[in-house]
Amino acid sequence: MEIVTGISRMREISRSVRSGVPAGREEQAAGEGDGKTGRGRGPAGARRAGPRRLGFVPTMGALHEGHLSLVRRAREVSDVVVLSIFVNPKQFGPAEDFERYPRDLERDAVLAAREGVEFLFTPSTGEIYPPTFSTSVEVERLSRVMCGASRPGHFRGVATVVLKLLNIISPDVAVFGAKDFQQWVIIRRMAADLNLDVELLLAPIVRETDGLAMSSRNASLSPAERQAARILDRSLHRARGLFARGERAVAVIDGAVRGSLEEEPLARIDYVAVVDPETLEPVASLSGPTLVAIAVRIGGTRLIDNVVLGNEKIAPRQSAPDPQLCRPEAAGRKDENVP
Amino acid sequence: MEIVTGISRMREISRSVRSGVPAGREEQAAGEGDGKTGRGRGPAGARRAGPRRLGFVPTMGALHEGHLSLVRRAREVSDVVVLSIFVNPKQFGPAEDFERYPRDLERDAVLAAREGVEFLFTPSTGEIYPPTFSTSVEVERLSRVMCGASRPGHFRGVATVVLKLLNIISPDVAVFGAKDFQQWVIIRRMAADLNLDVELLLAPIVRETDGLAMSSRNASLSPAERQAARILDRSLHRARGLFARGERAVAVIDGAVRGSLEEEPLARIDYVAVVDPETLEPVASLSGPTLVAIAVRIGGTRLIDNVVLGNEKIAPRQSAPDPQLCRPEAAGRKDENVP
Repeated sequence: MEIVTGISRMREISRSVRSGVPAGREEQAAGEGDGKTGRGRGPAGARRAGPRRLGFVPTMGALHEGHLSLVRRAREVSDVVVLSIFVNPKQFGPAEDFERYPRDLERDAVLAAREGVEFLFTPSTGEIYPPTFSTSVEVERLSRVMCGASRPGHFRGVATVVLKLLNIISPDVAVFGAKDFQQWVIIRRMAADLNLDVELLLAPIVRETDGLAMSSRNASLSPAERQAARILDRSLHRARGLFARGERAVAVIDGAVRGSLEEEPLARIDYVAVVDPETLEPVASLSGPTLVAIAVRIGGTRLIDNVVLGNEKIAPRQSAPDPQLCRPEAAGRKDENVP
Repeated sequence: MEIVTGISRMREISRSVRSGVPAGREEQAAGEGDGKTGRGRGPAGARRAGPRRLGFVPTMGALHEGHLSLVRRAREVSDVVVLSIFVNPKQFGPAEDFERYPRDLERDAVLAAREGVEFLFTPSTGEIYPPTFSTSVEVERLSRVMCGASRPGHFRGVATVVLKLLNIISPDVAVFGAKDFQQWVIIRRMAADLNLDVELLLAPIVRETDGLAMSSRNASLSPAERQAARILDRSLHRARGLFARGERAVAVIDGAVRGSLEEEPLARIDYVAVVDPETLEPVASLSGPTLVAIAVRIGGTRLIDNVVLGNEKIAPRQSAPDPQLCRPEAAGRKDENVP
């Protein structure tokens, strides 16, 4: 595994992988053409390894089994996998946890290498956001609701950095996790709206044995808070159960989730949303696929979770996680995100 | 010349040109590889025309010699030229001239074909902005000053559509005109900030015989207004003259330009800006390259013009326009945009 810190080196690698022309040979190969060609798309007959499909997994590091499941999904559909680690200051609010967000590059590098990641991209904040940086990308309505309402500017920061990373790495396919479902909806909308030439894939939520969705922020929980955090999955389980028994009224599903969350004294509800999984607009009833998404504060930690009811396609059944990296009891849990 | 209306067809052409794999053969060529490759980057040994460099000129149509000079510039640095015509509703304010902006695709197609353009891309508004469209790109400070102050949202619309077009066409190089200098600064900033992998070139302003910068909007001027419009170039000429004689005080240059414009009764100044040509911030003196930019209303028509004093690199000396398309007297004017 190569650790790549520079943007230009990352771009060079991407061109090399995707064109099949070894890095550093682009100029030479191009020179064999008509003198105008470039960009590593060497002419026919140049020595080429053959183009390979490039998969990309963007993360903020503090890797856990959830991230590694994204790497495995990327691996299934590509030849070479780039994993990026960049704690993006622009997606943290001024009162948020940017400074204390967990960082452990050494441990992350071990996990990524063990997973077979070919390139670990860890750009510096200064190279991603030089002093003159002044561009932002906004997905207008989708960014204002749910997590966007409590975290103004958050999704602008996410969209901007994801667009930058996609442009730097130029992958054939990028994989995102379903825990950040709103992020997924926004990035997919941005990619379509801006005509990005990349395939985007969603991978299902990976959970701890007791159901808590894996998150780098779980490490901030005290033991008591960690116990209390189980209420997120439990409340969604209640929604799944009601839906499975035929309940289709929004008020009933919403009320059951809220009621469940309110049973936990350490939990403070930020929002419970019962919405269309494409538009994130409230639904009148659960007649089609419906996203039930929640954000809850447990002590000083804000946690999110969600389930899509009524459509396996949107949040497909999860494959078994690697028992090496998950506690063995978790390997049997295959029902995440489906009713 | 092929007229291309669909985004997917345009993308197919771009891939074909840049990869050297003929359009429609991508799947087949890719199939000869390892089964995972795609996107028209066929493996070594596939039948290839050889990759060619793709040049791009974005326009809103109503083509004039200014646009055609951009095509010629693109031709100098690429093998295949795409010219786009799209009157972008998002860059017009509600009270602006979107509806009455001149449109004449037939005439434009003749001019483009005569210039040797290989592909004329004329997407529909509905395909560029489908009903779900909700993404915008903003270059924050640069978009708020000068034309951005009088036209709120204008540069957000410009940046968004240019990013879309660059993503659809994926050119090696794109050429912009110096008349819209602020647009150039913003697009260059956006491309750098978003890590776009494209070369951007600036081509100098092309002027009518009497100095008026060519613009599709000039057609809206009455004969009296057309006469009055000469004041824009004349006022900049005064700035050039002062600068050539060693004047470096902002107040003197600014005052001379304003004074000149105020001599024309039909002209109403929107702004006169004496600014840094990279940051668009006011300069303290003309010690370095300085942009003098003006916007003036003549009747109902808003016209802009500019000159960069003190740096030929930023706005290089213009090559002679094609006498076929310009009035012959114009062919001798080579001093635009230089002091």
